[in-house]
Amino acid sequence: MRNIALRLAYDGTDFIGSQYQNQGRSVQEALEQAWEGLTQERRRVNLAGRTDAGVHAVGQVANIRTETRHSRRTILRGMNAKLPPDVAIQAVAEVDPDFHARHSANRRSYRYLIDNNAAWLPNLRNYVWFVEQPLDQAAMAEALVRLEGTHDFAAFTALVPEQRSTVRTCYTARLSSVTMFDRHLIAIDLAANAFLQHMVRVIVGTVVLVGRGKITPDGFQAILEGRDRKAAGPTAVAHGLTLVSVGYPPGLLRWDAGEVTD
Amino acid sequence: MRNIALRLAYDGTDFIGSQYQNQGRSVQEALEQAWEGLTQERRRVNLAGRTDAGVHAVGQVANIRTETRHSRRTILRGMNAKLPPDVAIQAVAEVDPDFHARHSANRRSYRYLIDNNAAWLPNLRNYVWFVEQPLDQAAMAEALVRLEGTHDFAAFTALVPEQRSTVRTCYTARLSSVTMFDRHLIAIDLAANAFLQHMVRVIVGTVVLVGRGKITPDGFQAILEGRDRKAAGPTAVAHGLTLVSVGYPPGLLRWDAGEVTD
Repeated sequence: MRNIALRLAYDGTDFIGSQYQNQGRSVQEALEQAWEGLTQERRRVNLAGRTDAGVHAVGQVANIRTETRHSRRTILRGMNAKLPPDVAIQAVAEVDPDFHARHSANRRSYRYLIDNNAAWLPNLRNYVWFVEQPLDQAAMAEALVRLEGTHDFAAFTALVPEQRSTVRTCYTARLSSVTMFDRHLIAIDLAANAFLQHMVRVIVGTVVLVGRGKITPDGFQAILEGRDRKAAGPTAVAHGLTLVSVGYPPGLLRWDAGEVTD
Repeated sequence: MRNIALRLAYDGTDFIGSQYQNQGRSVQEALEQAWEGLTQERRRVNLAGRTDAGVHAVGQVANIRTETRHSRRTILRGMNAKLPPDVAIQAVAEVDPDFHARHSANRRSYRYLIDNNAAWLPNLRNYVWFVEQPLDQAAMAEALVRLEGTHDFAAFTALVPEQRSTVRTCYTARLSSVTMFDRHLIAIDLAANAFLQHMVRVIVGTVVLVGRGKITPDGFQAILEGRDRKAAGPTAVAHGLTLVSVGYPPGLLRWDAGEVTD
């Protein structure tokens, strides 16, 4: 039995999310159908990060346990020939039998994009949150950095299941400026061992209130420490969010330089 | 009578092009309808650059002669409230009565994006041309620069109307590397006083043959000098192309620093 890891990207606009649900297109189902088309195997695809409807990915990771003898190159090309245009496999790797895309992962990185201008840019409308009000980026950056470290993030999540820990370790919480189509955008990069449900979006919704002067960076830290969801800001729109990458302990997953060669 | 200039952006995916046609959605029609909704005036909108179906714009320019007393800020906000999400006014300026978005323009700048990787990136699929074959970017850059200057571009256009000049002055023909969504893309920037029909796309289709080693930079120059469309490469797909900006002689059009304030 082989265990194959896939690095994949998708445009979340027309998906109900990464995971299979009763109704609507999921990324998982698209992958499982393409896999069956390629190999005639019906297999469960494990995805590293759960993403909501509208959330995009450029570096999602999945794994599939398989009997197929297809080369990695054939898997990449064959899957991409069968997948719809809003999903594409970017790389294929051979992994140990006990590798699990979600359980083995120890780091997830997300980027949230904000278009803070007088009008939205149509080419980017499904990939950024358009915020018209002037934002104080320095204050936002100062608030964000308070998230770095190990904290109870209960204030910044949709749902706190009973007896489940809301403690996570945030490795990076930074703001930068990026340019796309000649447009200056605000990028908020968050990396952590794992994220709670809606965590990035609630953080962004709250940080935007800091940018608008409604909350100070100290107030933002007090919200974190208070662990009360009601004190935090609204959940930012899904479509500004992209899962950038998933990390694993050293040696577990290696995308070769020539990623698709055998 | 006032004369109002608009800087606008659109996502060309669902348009039949910039200009009104018998069938389908055009950018011109969307603008004229929004203008009528805002001002109750039925006016002709002049667009600086004609773009085909699928071609995008971030800095298209239009002008409208009007009796409206609306402030520039009201025009921007009012138009954007009425326009569909794939068009947005970015700035509004007051111009002299004889200013004409197309006739007064003396420079157009286009950017063509190429995604030269093993798989396409779904978030960018409507905005870049995905080219799988390895491309020699240095050779492409060397070919492109031969276009700078005043030349007869008959080899690089769809259509040569009788008795109409195909001489244009190319100010910039450069290749660079840009990053969007963590992805390295090839950007081809072309600026000229004016462009012939399909000129950017035929140039890009031919330069990609240079990148694939099918044509040398000297061969590319010979195609330019031969003025024969049949010697050039195929017309590159429309959706990789974006109209970036339109230029005017000094003093004709000034987007204020506070672009939408009165």
